[in-house]
Amino acid sequence: MCRELMLQSDLLRHNDVGAAGLRQRFAAAGVRVVNLLSSPGSGKTALLEAICRQLGAQAEPPRMAVIVGDLATDNDAQRLRAAGLPAVAITTGQACHLESTMVEAGLHRLEHQGIALEQLDLLLIENVGNLVCPAAYDLGESLRLVLVSTTEGEDKPLKYAPIFHRADLVVISKIDLAEAVGFDRAAARAAITRVAPRAAVLETSARSGAGLDALVSALALPVPA
Amino acid sequence: MCRELMLQSDLLRHNDVGAAGLRQRFAAAGVRVVNLLSSPGSGKTALLEAICRQLGAQAEPPRMAVIVGDLATDNDAQRLRAAGLPAVAITTGQACHLESTMVEAGLHRLEHQGIALEQLDLLLIENVGNLVCPAAYDLGESLRLVLVSTTEGEDKPLKYAPIFHRADLVVISKIDLAEAVGFDRAAARAAITRVAPRAAVLETSARSGAGLDALVSALALPVPA
Repeated sequence: MCRELMLQSDLLRHNDVGAAGLRQRFAAAGVRVVNLLSSPGSGKTALLEAICRQLGAQAEPPRMAVIVGDLATDNDAQRLRAAGLPAVAITTGQACHLESTMVEAGLHRLEHQGIALEQLDLLLIENVGNLVCPAAYDLGESLRLVLVSTTEGEDKPLKYAPIFHRADLVVISKIDLAEAVGFDRAAARAAITRVAPRAAVLETSARSGAGLDALVSALALPVPA
Repeated sequence: MCRELMLQSDLLRHNDVGAAGLRQRFAAAGVRVVNLLSSPGSGKTALLEAICRQLGAQAEPPRMAVIVGDLATDNDAQRLRAAGLPAVAITTGQACHLESTMVEAGLHRLEHQGIALEQLDLLLIENVGNLVCPAAYDLGESLRLVLVSTTEGEDKPLKYAPIFHRADLVVISKIDLAEAVGFDRAAARAAITRVAPRAAVLETSARSGAGLDALVSALALPVPA
């Protein structure tokens, strides 16, 4: 109730305080946290399923869990659980992004399922499908991954620049469809470099498995002390 | 300044008043207005280009103009002008949707280019690419068209239901890619029917031209008195 009366800047400040607390918790637990952002339908869930398969094949797979944000439905969480990933869904209603308090609620629900943060190596947060709203909301993540698919067109980074500005890693997904949609790789990479000059860029296909090795390596980097 | 202090409900009320004014102006001018909504990269601009080609081939093509909303860049407006459509770009900065005042500004800029509302048969408003935020903002349109591409997956209507609730027409775009992406037509149509039971549903491909005749017919319906 009080919350509805807060202004946007207050909301962001409130979120940042919560995110700082989360970042401390994540660091203390030694867990790497990835905030996964994209348009609806860029393949966030498919990529998480593929990562799970790829990591599951390792001799000592990292212990993982997922918090999934969606306006409605827990379809994605169900898909991820079917893939063997512990996953909880946060339904945001009208809200077009996850906030740090929602991540706290997700952690709480994981705990209720017997999954404590300290037992995890990797926590994946699948944000609400949206290339605008989630940009300003820090979730305490150690890595911000923005996904953009070959089917969306090469100019999306320029048109939705704010969300790319803070990306650590940009993944071009559905690379298996590049030829079918006439994807211009050079133009896409130039657009990404312009708005996210420090971000690493990878190309992946959840379907063919292309690029998943490199992605898994990028996710497995140790948590900064 | 005052505006930043208004609450969300005040903003919506303010927008609705503006939209009612626009609707009156549109009706008085006898112009049909389409509010075109979708995720980034679903093919809004490509569809408008295709509509322009399709209508341009008619003996007496309707007189058209476009107002394009984007966070940044006027790429889409440039593409549309190259296709022969008078187009003005509204850059919204951080705002993830168009509001009625922005449409008023767009009309003003069209007038400055010598294009009065009374001279038009069809005004197309390409909203900011976003499946969440634009849902609540009426722009005075006579037809609300939501686009969802085959590459985005079949469950998007269920996950982003609010924007579909008020749709008059749902267009499944990039139907030429249906096979390549394993698109499940029945599942997609069931999802659309569930959240937008009264909406007409069409399948189109801006690339192959499939479905464009039906779409152009739907757009050419007379303005309700």
